[in-house]
Amino acid sequence: VTGSPPADTIGRLLIRCADRQGIVATVASFLSASGANILSLDQHATAPSGGTYFQRTEFALPSGNLENLRAAFASDVARPFGMEFTLTDSAVPKRLGILVSRIDHCLLDLLWRTQRGELDVAIDVVVSNHDDLRSAVEPFGVPFVHVPVTEETKPEAEARQAELLRGVDVVVLARYMQVISRSMLDAVGVPMINIHHSFLPAFVGASPYRQAKERGVKVVGATAHYVTEVLDDGPIIEQDVVRVNHRHTTADLTRLGADVERSVLARAVLWHCEDRVVRDGDTTIVF
Amino acid sequence: VTGSPPADTIGRLLIRCADRQGIVATVASFLSASGANILSLDQHATAPSGGTYFQRTEFALPSGNLENLRAAFASDVARPFGMEFTLTDSAVPKRLGILVSRIDHCLLDLLWRTQRGELDVAIDVVVSNHDDLRSAVEPFGVPFVHVPVTEETKPEAEARQAELLRGVDVVVLARYMQVISRSMLDAVGVPMINIHHSFLPAFVGASPYRQAKERGVKVVGATAHYVTEVLDDGPIIEQDVVRVNHRHTTADLTRLGADVERSVLARAVLWHCEDRVVRDGDTTIVF
Amino acid sequence: VTGSPPADTIGRLLIRCADRQGIVATVASFLSASGANILSLDQHATAPSGGTYFQRTEFALPSGNLENLRAAFASDVARPFGMEFTLTDSAVPKRLGILVSRIDHCLLDLLWRTQRGELDVAIDVVVSNHDDLRSAVEPFGVPFVHVPVTEETKPEAEARQAELLRGVDVVVLARYMQVISRSMLDAVGVPMINIHHSFLPAFVGASPYRQAKERGVKVVGATAHYVTEVLDDGPIIEQDVVRVNHRHTTADLTRLGADVERSVLARAVLWHCEDRVVRDGDTTIVF
Amino acid sequence: VTGSPPADTIGRLLIRCADRQGIVATVASFLSASGANILSLDQHATAPSGGTYFQRTEFALPSGNLENLRAAFASDVARPFGMEFTLTDSAVPKRLGILVSRIDHCLLDLLWRTQRGELDVAIDVVVSNHDDLRSAVEPFGVPFVHVPVTEETKPEAEARQAELLRGVDVVVLARYMQVISRSMLDAVGVPMINIHHSFLPAFVGASPYRQAKERGVKVVGATAHYVTEVLDDGPIIEQDVVRVNHRHTTADLTRLGADVERSVLARAVLWHCEDRVVRDGDTTIVF
Repeated sequence: VTGSPPADTIGRLLIRCADRQGIVATVASFLSASGANILSLDQHATAPSGGTYFQRTEFALPSGNLENLRAAFASDVARPFGMEFTLTDSAVPKRLGILVSRIDHCLLDLLWRTQRGELDVAIDVVVSNHDDLRSAVEPFGVPFVHVPVTEETKPEAEARQAELLRGVDVVVLARYMQVISRSMLDAVGVPMINIHHSFLPAFVGASPYRQAKERGVKVVGATAHYVTEVLDDGPIIEQDVVRVNHRHTTADLTRLGADVERSVLARAVLWHCEDRVVRDGDTTIVF
Repeated sequence: VTGSPPADTIGRLLIRCADRQGIVATVASFLSASGANILSLDQHATAPSGGTYFQRTEFALPSGNLENLRAAFASDVARPFGMEFTLTDSAVPKRLGILVSRIDHCLLDLLWRTQRGELDVAIDVVVSNHDDLRSAVEPFGVPFVHVPVTEETKPEAEARQAELLRGVDVVVLARYMQVISRSMLDAVGVPMINIHHSFLPAFVGASPYRQAKERGVKVVGATAHYVTEVLDDGPIIEQDVVRVNHRHTTADLTRLGADVERSVLARAVLWHCEDRVVRDGDTTIVF
Repeated sequence: VTGSPPADTIGRLLIRCADRQGIVATVASFLSASGANILSLDQHATAPSGGTYFQRTEFALPSGNLENLRAAFASDVARPFGMEFTLTDSAVPKRLGILVSRIDHCLLDLLWRTQRGELDVAIDVVVSNHDDLRSAVEPFGVPFVHVPVTEETKPEAEARQAELLRGVDVVVLARYMQVISRSMLDAVGVPMINIHHSFLPAFVGASPYRQAKERGVKVVGATAHYVTEVLDDGPIIEQDVVRVNHRHTTADLTRLGADVERSVLARAVLWHCEDRVVRDGDTTIVF
Repeated sequence: VTGSPPADTIGRLLIRCADRQGIVATVASFLSASGANILSLDQHATAPSGGTYFQRTEFALPSGNLENLRAAFASDVARPFGMEFTLTDSAVPKRLGILVSRIDHCLLDLLWRTQRGELDVAIDVVVSNHDDLRSAVEPFGVPFVHVPVTEETKPEAEARQAELLRGVDVVVLARYMQVISRSMLDAVGVPMINIHHSFLPAFVGASPYRQAKERGVKVVGATAHYVTEVLDDGPIIEQDVVRVNHRHTTADLTRLGADVERSVLARAVLWHCEDRVVRDGDTTIVF
């Protein structure tokens, strides 16, 4: 018997509604009246008035439980304000599925950050259309499943992938070199985050580092974004760049870019899993 | 008769108090009940519990006036919570006094940003211990006053400077090469912002670029901070750096650093004048 | 009579030829035999072998003159190696012509850096299709000429501009909001450097900051490039970026980007005027 | 029998001497006469005249061998010019020894970059004063040796470490939390590269992230430098920084800084192993 008190539940409330007066007061008063202590509150309105309102609130709930709070919030606040909301328990790690092809640096970085506790997630499975990275994944104790994809077998392969990814909260494409079909997006049904190796909207599609070399740019970059039906076009979560010059070959850009890719993807996944990212049309709000 | 409605008053409320439950709810409810619409709200607690709590709230007040709101807030909220607070009208530009010696780039950048409306301030006076920059300042329509400072005349000179700076809201040391005495700080009585040409705490004191060259650093930087009695030691508002290499001479560092200095100082002054910066002991919170 | 010796001539030699063995040795030996002392040497080959070779050499010539050296180099080195080359005297400042429309920050930055000696150039003339910036330019003692441009008068206007720009070494488009025609490029006959307010190839054309806001990018940037017939498509000299987020409006991006534009353009112009930039097809080498 | 020709030897020549006229010509002519083709040449003089001269030349030697070239260079060029020089074969990877304590990210990054061929080195041994990282190292096939160090046993421990490091070309301190004694430096006899978790000269010594938090800096950084007798004081090879703000705890700074540390150390080790780094007194030249 340690005698230490149970830790507080830390809840994260994300809301979205038409902007109007009194939202902060209403939400804050509801939480306060429910015994919750607000730890941080961040909000954004898309226009000074008449826009869409977004708010992320992190709070400690010393007693009571989130389920009751959720029900009360739905009826007392969300319904009258016409809000969409999510309410999550920060102690429950998000479950991740990872899709990857042959290039290892983004995958390894996610596995390694998870192992050392920097990224508080549970990686359920790594699915690849090649078998190359099996031995890199297995020491981390994460299941690796090889699902070959050819033009002919793509529908079945995608169905198998969706099956393997059932139950995850988010899918990360850690350099997965296949276009995701509309039906796959539907079948998976949770957000998918892709890392693209350019600062979008520059250099969409294949071989962005070769394109960058040919165009003679002085910075190259990487972009983490939500996957939509349109290739390299979803809402951007995070981007970063690195300076390059005429001496750098396409191979050098690939090597320098790899470091940017892995850190950009890691930040995007971390922020998503901390419920900091909200889609707003074709863009994102990152609280 | 234009028929256009009077613009809303935009108020900025900064508070500081011991952290406790219900502050957000109380403040937000007070504002909502007063007819104010919260435009943005940012807060920070120095510890999960038991720390100091800071909040910046920007709100639109369609009718009523800030003076009444201030009085009501003082009695209804600030007193019971033991809060310090400031409440300012965003339409009233801060009044600036500038101290400068002979180097022009930071001064010119502030004058130019003010002229083009990027920095919404009123520059009351430029005071210099040299006469060199008079012709650079006068085209901007800002009074330039030369107050020579020697070791013997320093007390009188500082008294004269304080006299000239009477009534300003903030004093900016835009490369002013004199130590500010305790009595000068007291006489001026408003925050003073200095730009130091290194990333503090590295290279305190004179000739930081020469020090940087001698130490062989690969980045140089600049720091904007509040002035205290201790040289180059006050709370840091903003810093930035630029990469350098062995080819750069001290003169090159000085030139490259000048660009960093002027942008770091401009950001610090902008943020201060938008009531975004709060001192927290030896550090700052920048909302 | 000071008795101080005449300063050395500092020459800058830029060469370009098919790569082959012995170029460095030949050029260095030629200079050494001519009494020149190499101060810096930078070179680049586009491929390990069989590519194009570029070299920039800066040297001090204590006696003799550059004209004789140029003639000797042409016959003894350039002809046998099939080299193109330029040889310039670093003491002769480049003559600049500036084209501008209504936005002042890039123009003012160039004028100011030239005035304080940071940019060792002679600005011959500022030509604008609007009269707005006359009073900003005149205090610098630089002629300002207003040449209105309409769709109908464009050919005559361009002819007038080219006339005004006769004799300059380089033309800088410091936020000039008109497409440059093929015939104007030919008539001007010297390199033209443009600043585009995005990190090309992203956001070509009008309103790049609005485009950036709509796409929801997390960095915005600026690009200085040589002007070609194709809009926003010439060889890139320099680029840089600044981080932004969902809170930044298009107006904020415009303000933040302005700082990047002026520093990117200043660097590109400085490097061009120090003979550091060589075109290599659609890209540049920046020594 | 493939019939493919033997690859050229790629040599790297680093020289250092008192500056005087004709060095480039002499070295380039020597190489050319020896049948070598210069691939890249970079040089630096510490003063316009009368300083110290440094040059790095990379060349392809299609036939002949480096040993003969070295002997000829020593007698024909180095001796008459009073040069120090090193001449290395780029095909021979540097042999590395790594010292580490308990923190894994820098070590893992070096192991991983070596495994994927990004860092062309041979890691002979990892020596640690703790046994914690054994299981992290062993999958890479690199020997891990635990040498405990206490105040009493330090001399014997250092002797044992030096013994284990015998034969390596460079020692990397990948977050090794012990001061290196003068006698250890002498016993090891090859350059040692340390990563310090601050932008030196700020925050020397223990707990730099805690110091950074207390000082309220807005950027934190990392520094890779050669080890000397004085703690955190040797010639700096590379530095980089990351922006932080008041919300970041010391733990956050530690996490964000870790990413900077590993990339700064990787760049420093890469450059050192490509013979790009030359010490110049208390500073470095990085070609």
